Amino acid sequence: MRLRNKPWASDFISQYPQYLIQAPENQKGKWNELFGNDNPIHIEVGTGKGQFITGMAKQNPNINYIGIELSENVVVLALQKLVDVELPNVKLLNVNANDLTNIFEKGEVGQVYLNFSDPWPKKRHIKRRLTYKTFLALYETILADKGEIHFKTDNQGLFEYSLMSFSEYGLLLKYVSLDLHNSNMEGNIMTEYEEKFSKKGQRIYRVEVQYK
Amino acid sequence: MRLRNKPWASDFISQYPQYLIQAPENQKGKWNELFGNDNPIHIEVGTGKGQFITGMAKQNPNINYIGIELSENVVVLALQKLVDVELPNVKLLNVNANDLTNIFEKGEVGQVYLNFSDPWPKKRHIKRRLTYKTFLALYETILADKGEIHFKTDNQGLFEYSLMSFSEYGLLLKYVSLDLHNSNMEGNIMTEYEEKFSKKGQRIYRVEVQYK
Repeated sequence: MRLRNKPWASDFISQYPQYLIQAPENQKGKWNELFGNDNPIHIEVGTGKGQFITGMAKQNPNINYIGIELSENVVVLALQKLVDVELPNVKLLNVNANDLTNIFEKGEVGQVYLNFSDPWPKKRHIKRRLTYKTFLALYETILADKGEIHFKTDNQGLFEYSLMSFSEYGLLLKYVSLDLHNSNMEGNIMTEYEEKFSKKGQRIYRVEVQYK
Repeated sequence: MRLRNKPWASDFISQYPQYLIQAPENQKGKWNELFGNDNPIHIEVGTGKGQFITGMAKQNPNINYIGIELSENVVVLALQKLVDVELPNVKLLNVNANDLTNIFEKGEVGQVYLNFSDPWPKKRHIKRRLTYKTFLALYETILADKGEIHFKTDNQGLFEYSLMSFSEYGLLLKYVSLDLHNSNMEGNIMTEYEEKFSKKGQRIYRVEVQYK
């Protein structure tokens, strides 16, 4: 997600180190200490403006959530939301998904969420898709045994590709919905993007996969 | 597919034993002899009125096709089509899919087609779906190594279920289309049902899976 540059973002971020964690590699293996409990840790890779992760955290107070967002201009909007609602079970990181293995120990993460990830439709950009095999290997490195990825998107091409990529990698498709908003799923928390595009009648696809 | 009873069906069928093979279990292991060549054999389970299999046979003269249909009232319509076009590379069988292993040797079949199979939407009928694990095991028993199933349907629920069933069984998703008629697939042969429902704007889903 690209947004206008925000010169005030760095300043704002530096005021809330308890929410947006600086030097997160220092927390590797110690995230539960930071949260002050032994609850499972779920991460969202590409957390955008933060509606999903704050919504999930409200809905599930016994799960710790960490939202990862590459863009400072975007993560600052998630931080603003978080400052407003003061949720103790959410942290944000302004890092690249490629750094996940420097930030989490093996087994430290219980679940990975991918929501409306950039589809990178051109074939030459396939390696940038967050469901490409190198990313699936990164997630495996930090997930607990039988860890899961929960993925939703409105992008048909990305969803088709991802089903094949998951299968090729040997992941189990535990749940597939080809029309989430007309399914029997309860408690779905929408992202900002999902809210906008589902209102326009766009179908939302969703899958849960599990490492073996 | 249920159609009105056709008292003339048996008579008509008995006139064309070269197309609709009687006592097909006697051909087990000898199907290539019957076709008089060494070309691969592809079967369609639930061949309906036969538009798909006759279309495929015209398009691919170097592949032998066997259409399997449980209902005599339906297979007779496929037989009428076949009598009209006189294709040497198509045979029809009026048998139950459960009998496949009595009819084909291991490795005798190169590919299985499932087209618009009965969705059996009720949970208590799950075992009747042609993508249920017992059917996947039947197909495995007759398919060559790395054999494939090509499946298409307009039924969203059946498609979602089938993706999970394939994955659970350990099949590889080689190709997935969530909107076949707006995809780049070339040479798609439509079934009668597909023609009718895609005209009404119904989406067609398609997947190719491979045994490992």
